Amino acid sequence: MQNFMEPKRVALIGISRRSGAGSFNLMENMRAFGFGGEIFPVNPNADRILGQRAYANVKEIKKEIDLAVISSPRETTLDILKDCIAAKIKAAIVVNQGFNDADRLGREMQQEMAEIARQDGIRILGPNTLGVINGFNNFTTSFMPVVKDRTPVGLICQSGIHFVGPQMFSGRFGKAIDLGNACDVGFYDALAYFGQDPEIKIIAIHMEGLNQGKDFLSLAASVVKDKPIVVHKSGSSKTGARAAVSHTGSIAGDYRLLRAALKQAGVTFLDEGGQMPHAMKTLLNLPLMRGNRVGVITYSGGAGIMVSDGLEKHNLQLAAFSEETIDQLAALSPQWLPLTNPLDIWPAVMLHSARRAYSVALKAVLNDPNVDGVICIALAPLPEFSFLDVSETLNTVMDEFPTRKPVIVWTYGPNTVEVQKRFESRNRIMVYSTLELATWALSLLRDRYKAIYRDRKS
Amino acid sequence: MQNFMEPKRVALIGISRRSGAGSFNLMENMRAFGFGGEIFPVNPNADRILGQRAYANVKEIKKEIDLAVISSPRETTLDILKDCIAAKIKAAIVVNQGFNDADRLGREMQQEMAEIARQDGIRILGPNTLGVINGFNNFTTSFMPVVKDRTPVGLICQSGIHFVGPQMFSGRFGKAIDLGNACDVGFYDALAYFGQDPEIKIIAIHMEGLNQGKDFLSLAASVVKDKPIVVHKSGSSKTGARAAVSHTGSIAGDYRLLRAALKQAGVTFLDEGGQMPHAMKTLLNLPLMRGNRVGVITYSGGAGIMVSDGLEKHNLQLAAFSEETIDQLAALSPQWLPLTNPLDIWPAVMLHSARRAYSVALKAVLNDPNVDGVICIALAPLPEFSFLDVSETLNTVMDEFPTRKPVIVWTYGPNTVEVQKRFESRNRIMVYSTLELATWALSLLRDRYKAIYRDRKS
Repeated sequence: MQNFMEPKRVALIGISRRSGAGSFNLMENMRAFGFGGEIFPVNPNADRILGQRAYANVKEIKKEIDLAVISSPRETTLDILKDCIAAKIKAAIVVNQGFNDADRLGREMQQEMAEIARQDGIRILGPNTLGVINGFNNFTTSFMPVVKDRTPVGLICQSGIHFVGPQMFSGRFGKAIDLGNACDVGFYDALAYFGQDPEIKIIAIHMEGLNQGKDFLSLAASVVKDKPIVVHKSGSSKTGARAAVSHTGSIAGDYRLLRAALKQAGVTFLDEGGQMPHAMKTLLNLPLMRGNRVGVITYSGGAGIMVSDGLEKHNLQLAAFSEETIDQLAALSPQWLPLTNPLDIWPAVMLHSARRAYSVALKAVLNDPNVDGVICIALAPLPEFSFLDVSETLNTVMDEFPTRKPVIVWTYGPNTVEVQKRFESRNRIMVYSTLELATWALSLLRDRYKAIYRDRKS
Repeated sequence: MQNFMEPKRVALIGISRRSGAGSFNLMENMRAFGFGGEIFPVNPNADRILGQRAYANVKEIKKEIDLAVISSPRETTLDILKDCIAAKIKAAIVVNQGFNDADRLGREMQQEMAEIARQDGIRILGPNTLGVINGFNNFTTSFMPVVKDRTPVGLICQSGIHFVGPQMFSGRFGKAIDLGNACDVGFYDALAYFGQDPEIKIIAIHMEGLNQGKDFLSLAASVVKDKPIVVHKSGSSKTGARAAVSHTGSIAGDYRLLRAALKQAGVTFLDEGGQMPHAMKTLLNLPLMRGNRVGVITYSGGAGIMVSDGLEKHNLQLAAFSEETIDQLAALSPQWLPLTNPLDIWPAVMLHSARRAYSVALKAVLNDPNVDGVICIALAPLPEFSFLDVSETLNTVMDEFPTRKPVIVWTYGPNTVEVQKRFESRNRIMVYSTLELATWALSLLRDRYKAIYRDRKS
């Protein structure tokens, strides 16, 4: 994979003579992304492309090329691959559609492509792929514009949609590999690369169909001890599976069997693709949860009820607070207030101040030996009511507090976007848009704790 | 309910002498909200409040008061209610906590409050409530700051959280009634009011426990023929139900029975509170869907697969496009492209233009007699790639197109917030943040169609 992710010299075969907006010129895009290596454009119909000498054939370059990126009509692709082999190129990305994703002729051509890769010592990524992104060394082969980022997330996918709209799927990521139709390079290869990559701390995978299944599962079981692996498998339905065949030619396989096998390997498996960015942020930033017992601190009794529903759904439970915790809150609350979990601190807020009440409550709950994780429900007020904003207060408690328990916040009010940013500013507390998501996020931390430590116990 | 929602003269009993930020002075809040009627502050320890004469007792006012808003320690509340009756006031809101939501003494006091309401011709909203909001006549009794809005949504709830953070629950609303502990005014009364209110087109309900159950259900079955009613019931879990008792003293009841009864009445029932804003926007703006058959147009094969999964989950199906539809797209696409549903138009976009390809595709799919509703998957590009943004194109097709089928958009890319706004700018197309939500939204429109027309068929 190193040739794909960290090349020094790249040949762009079938690169367009057009440039500027709307041309999707890969060479232009690659330069704009900051690639510092050498680029060799190959196009038999041009002498110069973007001011650089263009070659008629990759064999004319006469330098050691690490990677060829091929964007040319499907009819020409197999011959170009043979030229690459003649030029001793060890890695090629085939961008174009029209293979297993298309008709019978396309399937035959992909079959031949796979054989070339098996026999001739070249590794092929694709076809039907945007290739790779490596934000850590400013390299991408995507002809669609992509965002540069160095978040330690490695993404493995089969559709360019994940490159173009990352915030809808994986959230931010620093490196990505689009397997496309996966004629050769597959999930195992990509996982092996990210598994040993010190710049990557967590791995997000969107698969349509799993190739290299057995090897992948045993590798995943090993990688997951160090780095969380989060998988969403699309094509879970009958109609979705049929659509997957037409998209990348994937055989979607039995969804339930695959889910069971991945969970068994310790992988975090998502039922909905939209959960991915939330899962990544949770597992990247929060400590694991050692048990099921959740303490809830709330400004609102109504929200306390909703959070209870969410906890039960995810097999979590309301912690039974210790007497010490209750006593500390009782000292701030009116006598008639029933102090249980969820802990309604609004009366204490009205009697004292939001910051004092929340600070006392969070410290008490974090100190409570009966609590494994905490959900805080708080207002996101407009600036003129900033005395009700406890983001700074809670972050300070987290900084001072020695033990590691996950703390999750849910906010409501007119200023949620801004206040959520403040809560997350130190990466100690994470915020979720619904209480359902908040409770689900805690369950991921509990599940991962269980998955990692179950073997050590026995 | 008219005295609560449209009063001319309001007495504020137990109103604070403090004002300004942090005082939560209701009189100040009411004026800031634009209330044009007369306000009579009542506080035995003040001569003037915010420049107005303060009365020691409500009985001294000597004018016909439509509504009393009582914010005073719980020990004083019953006596104040008796004063209100003596002053011939017909409606009172009890803001304070400390009744069924608290201890035994509180429960006894609420019991007495309910008896006062039954016997003495006064209606009581609360206790433990922020009261009402009526954006259409600039009236609110909320001491927490709330947003003024005239969206034709009526909200009925049991927690102030819905007033303070509407975007997390119901989305925008023009009128709201917080029943709090609901000692007297209940779900039936509030629904009856919104049911006949010409300014309200759709009703959002968050209930902790349903009082007035039998009457409510038969009223709902009637109202729902004209106006969608969307219900989220919190306290669905055992722990949530216990928390509901401690919050408003509600008996949460059997969740499954209630859900079945509400669905039978034609109500849209939500399993998660976070779905509410999406449900409101869907049912308020989109036409109903007459069947299960969905046409999908997509820039991305990967997204086409995910949407297929979502459709199956909600008992929707991919429409089998007519030959005419396929022929129109075939004329724009490369020959090798398999044209099915989901309809991958990216190759046509690359060969022609995004606007031409999407315009042809949407018209063809809307015209297709095999299609009941449409999901469009499109890019949200940065301004320099605006030629890929089809929001204006799709809105124009909708304006020109005579039949009424719901069209839903899902976008991915670096500029989703802005492009989503553009899509929704004419209220013809609605946008959702995940494909799961998008398919679920269509299922609401199908379910409501079924609920309304099932009786007419038989």
